[in-house]
Amino acid sequence: MGVTVPQGFRAASTTAGIKPSGNPDMALIVNDGPEFHAAAMFTRNKVTASPVRYTKQHNDGQFKAVIVNAGNANACNGAQGDRDAAQMAAEAAAAVGVDPHDVAVCSTGLIGDLLPMDKVSSGIAQLAENLSDDVNAGEGAAEAIMTTDLVTKQSVYHGDGWSIGAMGKGVGMMAPSLATMLVFLTTDAKLSGPNSAHKALSSATATTFDCIDVDGSTSTNDTVVLLANGASGVTPDEEEFVAAVHQVCLDIAMQLQADAEGVTKRVSITVTGAATDAEAKDAARVVGRDNLFKCAMFGSDPNWGRVLAAVGMAPVEMDPNAISVSFNGQPVCVNATGAPGAREVDLSGADVAVEVDLGVGDGTATVWTTDLSHSYVEINSAYSS
Amino acid sequence: MGVTVPQGFRAASTTAGIKPSGNPDMALIVNDGPEFHAAAMFTRNKVTASPVRYTKQHNDGQFKAVIVNAGNANACNGAQGDRDAAQMAAEAAAAVGVDPHDVAVCSTGLIGDLLPMDKVSSGIAQLAENLSDDVNAGEGAAEAIMTTDLVTKQSVYHGDGWSIGAMGKGVGMMAPSLATMLVFLTTDAKLSGPNSAHKALSSATATTFDCIDVDGSTSTNDTVVLLANGASGVTPDEEEFVAAVHQVCLDIAMQLQADAEGVTKRVSITVTGAATDAEAKDAARVVGRDNLFKCAMFGSDPNWGRVLAAVGMAPVEMDPNAISVSFNGQPVCVNATGAPGAREVDLSGADVAVEVDLGVGDGTATVWTTDLSHSYVEINSAYSS
Repeated sequence: MGVTVPQGFRAASTTAGIKPSGNPDMALIVNDGPEFHAAAMFTRNKVTASPVRYTKQHNDGQFKAVIVNAGNANACNGAQGDRDAAQMAAEAAAAVGVDPHDVAVCSTGLIGDLLPMDKVSSGIAQLAENLSDDVNAGEGAAEAIMTTDLVTKQSVYHGDGWSIGAMGKGVGMMAPSLATMLVFLTTDAKLSGPNSAHKALSSATATTFDCIDVDGSTSTNDTVVLLANGASGVTPDEEEFVAAVHQVCLDIAMQLQADAEGVTKRVSITVTGAATDAEAKDAARVVGRDNLFKCAMFGSDPNWGRVLAAVGMAPVEMDPNAISVSFNGQPVCVNATGAPGAREVDLSGADVAVEVDLGVGDGTATVWTTDLSHSYVEINSAYSS
Repeated sequence: MGVTVPQGFRAASTTAGIKPSGNPDMALIVNDGPEFHAAAMFTRNKVTASPVRYTKQHNDGQFKAVIVNAGNANACNGAQGDRDAAQMAAEAAAAVGVDPHDVAVCSTGLIGDLLPMDKVSSGIAQLAENLSDDVNAGEGAAEAIMTTDLVTKQSVYHGDGWSIGAMGKGVGMMAPSLATMLVFLTTDAKLSGPNSAHKALSSATATTFDCIDVDGSTSTNDTVVLLANGASGVTPDEEEFVAAVHQVCLDIAMQLQADAEGVTKRVSITVTGAATDAEAKDAARVVGRDNLFKCAMFGSDPNWGRVLAAVGMAPVEMDPNAISVSFNGQPVCVNATGAPGAREVDLSGADVAVEVDLGVGDGTATVWTTDLSHSYVEINSAYSS
């Protein structure tokens, strides 16, 4: 149900021994053509991992394969890290018979330890042997890229004679900034060129991955790659293709939110009445990052005052006397004043929809976040991850 | 040891019944002159409480009294909240025989519930009766302004024939933005005018309260007031006065950090090598707000990669390849690469000093934060506060 669903893609996974848990930790995706259009988006963090720098450098509209390891981010490893990322690309390229600059490299895991390159090299050899276009191969790859993820994240869109497959990982250090965690999309749709892939991917990420904010922490390794090979021979309507990529990205994004570290509540924050959509997104993100608000959600506490206090710090235009808030559709604050029954709203369910109106314009956006729970603290304080 | 230490100031506290706990919840400070210079600084939150709006409106360099309640923030209460704040000022003014616009009003507590004005009125009458220049009166006032504070925060500076006294409160929703929680300073120094008070207070807050960031959440009610009456007849050297106000503010700030909600670690983040001091402060604040970093501190985990990932998102100039980090003086990352022994640094103590060099200039600043602990989650999810 993932990246091997579209025609002309093979995938593989293996246990190279990078993760201390002994779980599968390397994956490979190969595009068998006939076309090799690709689009990729990356973290906006100024501190980038070596694989991000390698893949960005070769992001010229064509990738034929993606090599991924989990358990080690290959970030903050200096020149040796850069050499290791290039070697991963070169060895994967040699193993599948393509040029090294046509290989995208991704790593995820702990920052600051050198990659165990002997294990990586053996892993790549094994991956090349394991390559298959079977659906289980995609499933295995989705499992191998997990770190503290509890479940795999995959999605499929079936068009008329063509399809999109996708897999992703990411549960913490997750506040993508115009890119995201690791997400890989494959499609056998026949596109006019890499620009079509880029256009669909960039518009989809802006309203899906970019709008997830689990902990305000943006990774050094975020990467999304879309590979398109035209193997179906079908050229979808452009609007349908853009919508399909958006749907798959949204599906993966919601799976990422649902498996976020320590999550007990899935919280959506929709800001309306902003001056612009961009300002709405900024305001929603400020609320979604506020620890007091997130703790209140964990406690199922309709403490709307924390929403007001949080949104008041957003660097956007608002009418402080006209701000209104609802929880799950029930008004709790109207024109910056408490609504009757506001303290009795039931937030005991797993999903909470928060709507905040800023009272100045037509801008709107939604950001998805989670509560701040004991489990989040436990997961992120108990060991280096 | 607080606001009644300088000559010519009286204080009082009482239990008006605003706090459900039944603890003291109202305080009054009266300046008996002969001078009435005052400076005040306020939250930069766009959503401001009614008492902040009232006090800002009358912030003309002269206050003769400060009336404070805890247990209810009188924020987001619309026009009724504004009327209640004005009534608090008017009743306090009548009780001590001054003009209502010479009274500063402060409230702190839950956002969004109307003040119980009958209790407030009785409380003000009681406060006027309790007024005293005894040191215990200042102690009582410091206790009455507490919310989830566990201990009072007071400070004193003794000059040559003059002094400064101070009290403050604040443990959560604490990321002051050019102002702070509630802090009150009194001095019997003879100043040239309110501008001297303002100059000393604004420079002190910029490097003390403004640099505390417990949870990234900025209150709707932050207020700092300095009252100066010249009762000592001594005009201190200007440089000494500025330094003394800074010392007292820093002392209160460190007491606020030490009593922060759920704190188990007091963490200072010093950024050096920034383009400017302002950029250093911005970068330090980004690290101090990062939940993954704060969880690592709770776990005594020297996970320096989270510092790199956090600082990489700061909107400031940096050389990503020249960033260095030390924990308690031990280098853990040099030129964006792990230092030998970095994973073995002992962070088990209650104080952690983090230093981050951005490698581009001479700008430097320190921000004080805390860890993110189970207690923080517990305190802020268990009930509306």
